[in-house]
Amino acid sequence: MTKANFPSALLGTAISTLIFSTSAFAETQDVREIQAKALEDNLAFEITEGLTTEIGPRQGGTEAETRARQWAVNKLTDLGFGKVRIEQFMMPTWVRGEETAEIIAPFPQKLAITALGNSGSTGANGLEAEVVFFPTVAALAAVPDGSLNGKIAFVSHQMRRSQDGSSYGAFGAVRFFGPNIAAQKGASAMVIRSVGTDYRRNPHTGNTNFSDRVAPIPAAALSIPDAENLRRMIERSEEPVKMKLVLTPQNIGQQESGNVIAEVAGTDPSLSMVLIACHLDSWDLGTGAIDDGAGCGIITAAAKLIMESEIKPKRTIRLLWAGAEEVGVWGGKDYAVVHKDTPHALAMESDFGADRVWRVEFNLPESAKETQDKIISSLGPLGIGHNPSIVAGGGADVRPIIGAQNLAIIDLQQDGTRYFDLHHTPDDTLDKIDPKQLRQNVAAWTTVLSIIANSEIDFTLPPKE
Amino acid sequence: MTKANFPSALLGTAISTLIFSTSAFAETQDVREIQAKALEDNLAFEITEGLTTEIGPRQGGTEAETRARQWAVNKLTDLGFGKVRIEQFMMPTWVRGEETAEIIAPFPQKLAITALGNSGSTGANGLEAEVVFFPTVAALAAVPDGSLNGKIAFVSHQMRRSQDGSSYGAFGAVRFFGPNIAAQKGASAMVIRSVGTDYRRNPHTGNTNFSDRVAPIPAAALSIPDAENLRRMIERSEEPVKMKLVLTPQNIGQQESGNVIAEVAGTDPSLSMVLIACHLDSWDLGTGAIDDGAGCGIITAAAKLIMESEIKPKRTIRLLWAGAEEVGVWGGKDYAVVHKDTPHALAMESDFGADRVWRVEFNLPESAKETQDKIISSLGPLGIGHNPSIVAGGGADVRPIIGAQNLAIIDLQQDGTRYFDLHHTPDDTLDKIDPKQLRQNVAAWTTVLSIIANSEIDFTLPPKE
Repeated sequence: MTKANFPSALLGTAISTLIFSTSAFAETQDVREIQAKALEDNLAFEITEGLTTEIGPRQGGTEAETRARQWAVNKLTDLGFGKVRIEQFMMPTWVRGEETAEIIAPFPQKLAITALGNSGSTGANGLEAEVVFFPTVAALAAVPDGSLNGKIAFVSHQMRRSQDGSSYGAFGAVRFFGPNIAAQKGASAMVIRSVGTDYRRNPHTGNTNFSDRVAPIPAAALSIPDAENLRRMIERSEEPVKMKLVLTPQNIGQQESGNVIAEVAGTDPSLSMVLIACHLDSWDLGTGAIDDGAGCGIITAAAKLIMESEIKPKRTIRLLWAGAEEVGVWGGKDYAVVHKDTPHALAMESDFGADRVWRVEFNLPESAKETQDKIISSLGPLGIGHNPSIVAGGGADVRPIIGAQNLAIIDLQQDGTRYFDLHHTPDDTLDKIDPKQLRQNVAAWTTVLSIIANSEIDFTLPPKE
Repeated sequence: MTKANFPSALLGTAISTLIFSTSAFAETQDVREIQAKALEDNLAFEITEGLTTEIGPRQGGTEAETRARQWAVNKLTDLGFGKVRIEQFMMPTWVRGEETAEIIAPFPQKLAITALGNSGSTGANGLEAEVVFFPTVAALAAVPDGSLNGKIAFVSHQMRRSQDGSSYGAFGAVRFFGPNIAAQKGASAMVIRSVGTDYRRNPHTGNTNFSDRVAPIPAAALSIPDAENLRRMIERSEEPVKMKLVLTPQNIGQQESGNVIAEVAGTDPSLSMVLIACHLDSWDLGTGAIDDGAGCGIITAAAKLIMESEIKPKRTIRLLWAGAEEVGVWGGKDYAVVHKDTPHALAMESDFGADRVWRVEFNLPESAKETQDKIISSLGPLGIGHNPSIVAGGGADVRPIIGAQNLAIIDLQQDGTRYFDLHHTPDDTLDKIDPKQLRQNVAAWTTVLSIIANSEIDFTLPPKE
């Protein structure tokens, strides 16, 4: 869709939605009833509270994640789900060590820092080097190879808030690729301004990736107040600003991780299943409340409401609590391999915090138009809109199976305005969750599942060109 | 004043203020001009920015505070103040070491913790013990001596926001006295919920005090999310919750600290001086922006505006950038000894952040009634009110000289609503300062100084009964 016909397309949707909602009053009543129940349901919060309190941080490939899988199996079994099991896999594992940074000259003081996933090590004695500032990744990429020999590259550009989280793509590049570029230029290490929107003195971790052609260098994120302080130091100083950096992460080889799977059995085995996902692992710094304990809470609470309602879903609903997402989507990739021959109708994931769903996005075949309109209409009372120019892309853990099977997708987009205040920081804790917004998520998921799981239409997308 | 006649007293003040403000139009014009200038003045922010960037954390008695004193001398000299000097003193000094806490059983995970000033050490190997929860300090105080042998006492009660910061007194008790009580009861260590109003994962430090009758035990504050998590663990667990605590602070003996003093010379040496104070030191975790870089910025910017205005102050204005306040008000105490024979007219201090002044409080003699009314009237346009039932008490650094000389006091009370989100945490950094509110502070101080420094009235209070 071009930008020019955007308003009329929106109007078209509004009108068809309106027509639909008057012509299907009875069905809508069912949806209203289960929505109302979901808006009172506290299970999503209870799951998040249990996981963050009884397990806490649970990085993929670590012993904590193993405990979390057992916790998940117990919880899903207790809740009455069927076929609860762990599907194990092995994955290369990187673990954090010591991490400190201090300015040695000209303005000695400590800075709050954390290593990025896959960072190299400085060794226990650390390294001391001049900091060279770049305003953007592009500016770093523009300098000649070898020009940063013996230096610490520092890129600091400010990520701004956005409701749809789209700024993460653009501003996240500094973390995803920056250290690889700095290594190519010969830098001894790289520090970045955290990819975040807060002013807490807690840095944002997350994976960085090195190509096979460079040796990983130490790579770390400064908290945003510290990155701004370092910039001021560089601006004020007539001499080079020198940093001592100690980062001692380690690669501990192949470790065990796994996906936890559970099901609500459908009444019609001939129909393909609906896959709903979250990820069980978290980064090691916080307790993984918004990323992604809440996601597991939301999908599970919604599935349980369906399981216990009068709606007897025709399709099986499969829950995937994926392992090791943060550190490389190992669970999602494993699922796509193991279940490559399992027929799926469509896939959904909740992995963008715990704030309210504000928009629904689809990638459905033309034949599902009526179902799509029913979903849009049913979500309206929850304050959820629809922008027809956006095609759903799915969450990280379902993207591999989506890619493998060309699956239909529905995305219930959560409000990401404050998500990057907390993302991948120690501050990702239970207290950040608003139970009321969390329940709205459950209501939205319950709504969609109640419609999809009983739909007999063919969700097969046309083959990709 | 009793509560019953409160409203009529307020009304009386309002009326006399109104009468005054019409009868002294010309003088008020002068005040308006300097207020307008102050509202455009950026010096307070520049001082705070310089101190937090070029020095950063500057704990009393440490080498960083020594660098801060030299920075202060250079800055005050460059700004044109007279008699800039350091008055050195010695003080016992406690410094932070390693600090980690983790739950060992039944829900293993790390907790964010920081030692309280004067905490004892666990030794490098740490200690492992059961955590015993108390909802209040009173509940802790109620258990028999010896009943906590080998246990870690944990008090967690929630401080709430207040504009005047008065909740710090009540809720701060757990930090001020809690560990001393726990030591009396035989506890191996004590952990508290941070005395703060935020939900950042950064604990609040601050001094605790042990009497001579107990050996200091390890004492530390959990961040508020961690304290809430620990409470949940205790509620959920059927077995004892065990913590491993490592705190290795040290007492490093007598170290050098000092007060930095500067003056704006008055034209009439027969009049006693006005003392205005802030403190130069900060806790070691943050960069000391709101506590109390901003205070030094505010008083200095105001004094400089007076120095450079048409107002030729009759009284000398003396600036005291006190040393080592956080760790025991050593600078304020030293000042009171060294300057016990110096005549002071009155004392003021700025040490409650950088948010706007919302209320003025006085402790002045009856003879100063007209001056007081003029101040109230002049501060009105800045949005500053007055509650006549409150008697000014002065800031920590001026209280010793106030006590020694029974000095008159004016307090420009800052809005403390968000102060305890940041107080004594790593998050006390420049980015938390709102330059506009900071300038309002400067305008309020300039207003009061312009009136007081030219007043020839006798500010001597009647002797205390």
